[in-house]
Amino acid sequence: MCGTCGCGEADVRVEVLGGGRRQPHDHLHAHDPLPGVVEIETALLAKNDHLAAHNRSWLAERGIVALNLMSSPGSGKTSLLRRTITELAPVRPVAVIEGDQETRIDAEKIRATGAPVVQINTGAGCHLDADMLARGLAELRPTDGSLVFIENVGNLVCPALFDLGEAAKVVVVSVTEGEDKPLKYPQMFSVADLVLINKIDLLPYVDVGLEHLVAHCRSVYPGVGVLPLSVTTGEGVGAWCDWLRVSEPATG
Amino acid sequence: MCGTCGCGEADVRVEVLGGGRRQPHDHLHAHDPLPGVVEIETALLAKNDHLAAHNRSWLAERGIVALNLMSSPGSGKTSLLRRTITELAPVRPVAVIEGDQETRIDAEKIRATGAPVVQINTGAGCHLDADMLARGLAELRPTDGSLVFIENVGNLVCPALFDLGEAAKVVVVSVTEGEDKPLKYPQMFSVADLVLINKIDLLPYVDVGLEHLVAHCRSVYPGVGVLPLSVTTGEGVGAWCDWLRVSEPATG
Repeated sequence: MCGTCGCGEADVRVEVLGGGRRQPHDHLHAHDPLPGVVEIETALLAKNDHLAAHNRSWLAERGIVALNLMSSPGSGKTSLLRRTITELAPVRPVAVIEGDQETRIDAEKIRATGAPVVQINTGAGCHLDADMLARGLAELRPTDGSLVFIENVGNLVCPALFDLGEAAKVVVVSVTEGEDKPLKYPQMFSVADLVLINKIDLLPYVDVGLEHLVAHCRSVYPGVGVLPLSVTTGEGVGAWCDWLRVSEPATG
Repeated sequence: MCGTCGCGEADVRVEVLGGGRRQPHDHLHAHDPLPGVVEIETALLAKNDHLAAHNRSWLAERGIVALNLMSSPGSGKTSLLRRTITELAPVRPVAVIEGDQETRIDAEKIRATGAPVVQINTGAGCHLDADMLARGLAELRPTDGSLVFIENVGNLVCPALFDLGEAAKVVVVSVTEGEDKPLKYPQMFSVADLVLINKIDLLPYVDVGLEHLVAHCRSVYPGVGVLPLSVTTGEGVGAWCDWLRVSEPATG
């Protein structure tokens, strides 16, 4: 299962580096997938796509721009949102939907800025889906014409597969995660409308080349927009806010 | 589905902070889960548990200690393994199974140390499972009595649910991810036999209290072993290697 997170067994590859002959599997052999798994996966993603289209129409009718922020845990999404709200709220209504397995920690941080916020706790879940967003929007009741940030569960794999009906997907990666993440998690970076490279103030202390990280983003998705920034120092935050100011609702 | 990653819809909670009255859902309402999903999830996890028990027996018969390393992307698992292999390989055979969605980058880094290594690419998958480990071990053919490190796919959610048949689960978290991760991802931290807090050399540059991070690990799992370390400076690596030297195979 878990193929709704994309974990289909079909494309798993096992490889010995440096060659080496294959041996009989010695009672440790691959097993057939369970019947019905592929069908359930397909049905779940189809259902999600249907609900996402519904969300997209609902948002477009109200002139609301919804942005889906995705990243590894700890990339700095919540801090970025707090700073962004401070910059934008005086000129445009901003609201937030927070996704986490547990706790209201992030929602409380957003609430302290004065922005309306809804916390979605997924429990055991690894991503937000279109149904959860619908439920969050129904509680949030965002103002027409507003900007709604959706902070997804911290996970660089599963959220990439789930259309929420958002206007754009923004992937955040911090320089402390290393420069190879776009290559190792290409599904996520290939769906990004924009990549934010956060924590560039830490570049002097880590063995990471910003130019290599940018190049890897573009090798996975040629032409993708990439903005380096630091929430701590504020460098690059202006360019991000400029990008937001011209963002438009998805076509419903 | 995706409930094999734990994403059952049953335990999703949506909450407005600061109160606010509920409104009619305005055509954005929760939908019933698809039939068959729970049954498939249960069957998949049961199948995994069966294969994990098989792996555990296979490893125990050979006196092999398998350790499952789990973390967010970019916590420094591969760098830690390279340093660990340098310390331990002179006194004990060490081998590695690398899990990533794509690329052989990590396996090539391990291979450069001289340790035997197998790369498992999961494609769209978000975690290793017991069947993948069985296939990896069949290719790796680890020496009897050896230490086998399994570097799981970088993901702080889904791998927590899948028993591989390992002797111990080691969770790695870096200080740059923030001090709240154990609270926000409690499933992962509650299955840890040991938590390694990496990148403590970066503490002077981030707004994170090591004592808070340790306390949060123990609030989720009282009594769990926690070792702070820095692969870059080597601080704490000795204590980690001491822990490894006394590790024993799981009872098969």
